[in-house]
This record gives sequence, C-alpha cells and structure tokens, in this order.
Amino acid sequence: MTTDRDGIIQLSVPMARTLCLDIFRQLAVPDCEATQTAAILLEASLRGIDSHGIALLAVFAERIRSGQIHPGRAPFIRREGPTTAWVDGQHGMGPTLAVAAMTLAMDKARRTGLGAVSLYDGNYVGALAGYVEDPARAGYIALAMANATPRVAPHGGGQGLHGTNPIAWAAPAADGEPLLFDAATGHAAARIGQAADDGSTIPAGIALDPDGRPTTDPFAAAKGTLLPVGGALGYGLGLLVDVLTGGLAAAPMGRCVPPVTALDGPYGCSFFALVIDPDRFGGATGLAADVAVLRESARTSTFFNFLDAVRAPGDRAWETRRKRLAEGIPCTHRRWQGLLQRLVACGLNISRAAAIDRST
Amino acid sequence: MTTDRDGIIQLSVPMARTLCLDIFRQLAVPDCEATQTAAILLEASLRGIDSHGIALLAVFAERIRSGQIHPGRAPFIRREGPTTAWVDGQHGMGPTLAVAAMTLAMDKARRTGLGAVSLYDGNYVGALAGYVEDPARAGYIALAMANATPRVAPHGGGQGLHGTNPIAWAAPAADGEPLLFDAATGHAAARIGQAADDGSTIPAGIALDPDGRPTTDPFAAAKGTLLPVGGALGYGLGLLVDVLTGGLAAAPMGRCVPPVTALDGPYGCSFFALVIDPDRFGGATGLAADVAVLRESARTSTFFNFLDAVRAPGDRAWETRRKRLAEGIPCTHRRWQGLLQRLVACGLNISRAAAIDRST
Repeated sequence: MTTDRDGIIQLSVPMARTLCLDIFRQLAVPDCEATQTAAILLEASLRGIDSHGIALLAVFAERIRSGQIHPGRAPFIRREGPTTAWVDGQHGMGPTLAVAAMTLAMDKARRTGLGAVSLYDGNYVGALAGYVEDPARAGYIALAMANATPRVAPHGGGQGLHGTNPIAWAAPAADGEPLLFDAATGHAAARIGQAADDGSTIPAGIALDPDGRPTTDPFAAAKGTLLPVGGALGYGLGLLVDVLTGGLAAAPMGRCVPPVTALDGPYGCSFFALVIDPDRFGGATGLAADVAVLRESARTSTFFNFLDAVRAPGDRAWETRRKRLAEGIPCTHRRWQGLLQRLVACGLNISRAAAIDRST
Repeated sequence: MTTDRDGIIQLSVPMARTLCLDIFRQLAVPDCEATQTAAILLEASLRGIDSHGIALLAVFAERIRSGQIHPGRAPFIRREGPTTAWVDGQHGMGPTLAVAAMTLAMDKARRTGLGAVSLYDGNYVGALAGYVEDPARAGYIALAMANATPRVAPHGGGQGLHGTNPIAWAAPAADGEPLLFDAATGHAAARIGQAADDGSTIPAGIALDPDGRPTTDPFAAAKGTLLPVGGALGYGLGLLVDVLTGGLAAAPMGRCVPPVTALDGPYGCSFFALVIDPDRFGGATGLAADVAVLRESARTSTFFNFLDAVRAPGDRAWETRRKRLAEGIPCTHRRWQGLLQRLVACGLNISRAAAIDRST
C-alpha cells in the first residue's frame, strides 16, 4: 500500500481483505459470512464501483451494531419446487443471503434448465455484478435484481416511488470474461454524494429538490428525489424490479420499503435471482461464441466524439479490475479517514487499519 | 366509421377486424392464424401504438407476397424440458408463433412455477403488449422480448449494433387491468417516420445521421442510426434482449440479424417468453394487491409541470383502448390511402376497404 503526493492511498487487495475480515471478526460475523461479504465488497472496489466497495465496511458495522443486520442468520427456504424457491433472509448479512439465493437458482437451472429464487428480508447486498459473474463463468445466463428505499420518482413525478432498483445480467463469452452489465434503473445517489464532496454540480435531469423541482445542486438533490434513467424506460424497468423482488416475495415494495437510514428497525429489501441454462435451448457453446462476436462488434463500432471509444458492458470494469489487482485500490486520504472514524464510532479497534495509514 | 372535417377516419373495431380478415384470406393465411394476427394488430391500434397496428397489414401483405413470411407454418419444438422449450418458427406468421411460445411458457409455469420459451425464425411480431396481457390476466408475471434489424448504435457508437429490442412485462393487479409495460430499449424508428411525415424535427439525442453525427433532421436520421434510450441503460438492456432472443435461440443477433427490408430472404428474428407463477413464491393474491397499491402510489405522486399527471405504465394505453373501443381507431386520410395503395400493389382486392373509405 502506498500514498502518492495527492494523498491517494493505494490499498492492496490482501490488505483490504485482511482489514475487512478483521472488522467483521470484531463484529462477531461468522467466518464464512465474513469471507463472502469481504469478497463482494472487494469485487465492487476492484471493478471501480467505489460507492459499493470497501467503503461499505462502515455501513455494515453501523447496521450490525444497531441490530438492523443480524450476522449468523442463515437463509430459510419457506417454499420450494424443482425450479423455484421463496427464501426468508431473516435480516442476515445481505451478500451471504444473495450468494445463497443465486447458488440455489443455479442449482435448479442445472437440473431443470431454469432457476428463480425470491429472497426477502435480505438486507443490503452491495453491487449486483458480484452475484451474476460466477453463474456466467459456469456457462449460464444469470440475472439479479434488488429493490431499495423509494428515492426515485416515477417518470414525471416529484416524489420517490421506488428504489434505484438495479438490474445486473451476465452471459458466458468464448473470448474471455463474461459479458456483464450492472446498472441502476434510477440515477445513483452516489453520484450526488460525490458531487457534494467535490464541491461540483450534478448534471441536469438526474434529480429534483425537496419541492420536486429540477436541480443541479447536489445538496438540494440529496434532500430531494432521484429521477429514473431514460425517463419511461427506467421507470418501467424500476417497477419490474420492484415486482420481481418485493412483489414476488410478498415483502415491501415501492413506498412501503423502509428507509435504509432507519437503523433501529429492519430494512426489508428483497432480491431476485434468475438463472438460465443455454443447453436447454440453442446450446451453451454456440451462445458463448455468439456473445463474443456481439461484444467485438460493439468494441469495433465507429464512434462519435463524446466518448474516446465504444465499450461493451463490463469492459471498463474488467480494465479497472486488472489495474487495481496490480496497483491497489485507490482511496483519498479524506475518505479513508472518514471510514476509520465511522468504524471507531462503532467501538471497533482500528489499529490494523491505522497501521495501513501510518505505513504510507 | 366516420371521417371528421380534418380528414381523420374513425375505423370501428368490427370494421378493422373484417378488413384484416378479408386481406389475410386473400393472402391464403389459415383462419386461425388470420384471427390471431388480426387480434394482435387490433390490440396495438386500440392501445394507441399505431405504428404497430393495422398499418402493419401492408407489411404483412408485402412480406407474404415476397416469401419472407410463410402463413401456415406451425411452430416446431426442437428441444423441450419440463420448464423450457426451444422452438423453430419456420418463418411462419410472427403473431401466431409468439402467441404459441407465450402459451407454452404459461403452460410450463402452471406445472413447475416457471416457463421460458425461445423462438427463432419467428418473423415480425408487432407490439409486445399483446403477448403479456393474457398471462397477467391469468395471474402470472409475464415477460416478452424480441430482437430486430440492427439499427441502434451502442452507447457512444456511430453505427447500428442491435435492434430497437423491446421489452414488455405485465403483472396482475387487484384493482383491474394488469400493470403492463412495453417499450423499446432503442429510440423508435416510428417516431422518425412520423416527424418526416409531419415535416417536423426529431428531438436531439435520439438519432445520428449516416456519418454518425447527432441530428434532428428526420430524413438524415432515417438513413442513419438510432440511439439507445437512457444511454448505457438502454444499451445494456438492448444487449440483454439480443442475448435472450437470438443468443439463447442459436439464431442471428446483433449485426447478424438480416435487414427486415430485404424482402427476398428470411428475416431471422427471435422472440423470448418468460412466465412466472407467483403462487410458487409469496403468493398471487398478495402480489395482485401489492401491485394495485404500487400503481396507485404512482398515480397519486406529486408531479412537476412538464407532464399533466403521473401515470403508471400502461395507463395511457388502457385509456386509449377504452376511448377507441367506443369511438373507433383514428387514421388520417393520407395514411389510409397509403395503406390501400400498398395493398393494391400486392395484387389485393381492396373493394371492402375502399367501401369503408367511400362511406365517409
């Protein structure tokens, strides 16, 4: 780990993992759950989704301390068929529960061709990319969705109706990494937080102020409402996410999802996993070859000048992953100190983390 | 049927159906296929999706005459499991094939909780809304996707990579009509054609000219490329549609989908149907009640002034449907004459249609 002259800490992957495991151990998270959650957070950091990466350690610490998240609570299957399962997450660790749901869906797809698992009381799962990658590497098409606190307005509306409700999917590709897409259907709160930190404005069209008027002021937006991506498209797909997560799970959806910031009560968000075995259709080998051609067609497209190149979904994340595996995960000194302060406020011993900082 | 002083023909539903059936009979389409296709076209017209409604009669006529569409060719199941099917459409009538695929998926969902059907060589299916409505009325969540000629650029790109690749979904709602969403992931060519007809411009950000530069000129856009809706979101979901349609079906996807305008060869587009039985998860009754609450939350949202009200997905279409069932389907005299001319050019007897026109 190194700090450059601009105050950027480069956190090596082993160090970041050790830090996560140390903090989770202090929080009495069982080893297996700690390992799974650390892997999901690290994967997000490696892919460049910093808002969903190791920065979430503080969020997990605060919510475990408050009783919103209960480490050690295993997923409980309420209803099961050859191709489906309805699972009670019992407010356990989100990443552990979501990995279990996706693994169960993949197991069912292996046997029947399709697997769908609906998980409720699943808690915060972080970035969805980490859940669809493994099934795609195993030759399946995987899809994941999660709902969240209703901060996104309906198209044309002025108050929150549903969460940023992300959708991720991945498919095997013969030329290497899976083709992997992961995006929110609502504009991300993280972008607003970043602008507030940087003292910059946010683009027009992504948020409203508390009175429901369009704004470019990140502080007004933070107290206001987010807008769906692409207007009616993000709206319609954001609602699909709510229907397939909270709706299918008989759990909260839309305005009924509790505020994630209410740490004294359960969160009540849901997760949906769908896995498809291409060998039950036109065949996995041909699909992987065709996906590789599709991706190469995207990369070699002519482009116009607002971007420097055309990328396929996931390309930037795979590039970032390779770079960060080699060079470490960058973090500003200010954010790093902010993370440590929140961990200390949870009564955690940060001597290991502080040692990382001192070594710079 | 009436024509008002602005030259708008109001075509009653029985008249429109009779016209469709008469034309299909002349084209030697078997009765059952004619009835199904007429129902799909009429449903699109009733919902206000005029570009995918009875105006398509001319498209069907031209493609049947050219041999691109083969009426009477039934779907052939190439591979089947308890929850999946891979179906060869044999270049038959698109709506008949897509209805068969969705019905098969629903049948599998009834038995196992999930059903997915992949259809290739399915031909043009029209608007997807007509396929997801019936499963939702029967208590299922249904999802439909279709790929098409690659006219939509990847995000940041300057040439077509995939089709406008629509996604439709519907879920049962306790308060009446299903919650139904149907939209393309790429900006629609129909909007450009409409602007060209009206002599107006198109909004910025929906299309590029043949040199890959942004344009608001509908004629330049018609020769150029469409853009994905919502940038990276429409791009990522447009590719998901290609992967689940052409990819899963071992059929053309991306740039490999033939131009739909090449009437002398097969089209080669694909269709994907997914049906989910909520009773295998948290339960259908609760879901329908929750969906009604979600929809009402959307409708009662505060709104800002660029729209006159907040609508739930499908609301405008259900309103239009009620109005058109009562008053007829409006069509400008010019478009009506254009449709008749194309039917005549296919060697069809339009005396029945001409009688409609004379009666105005």
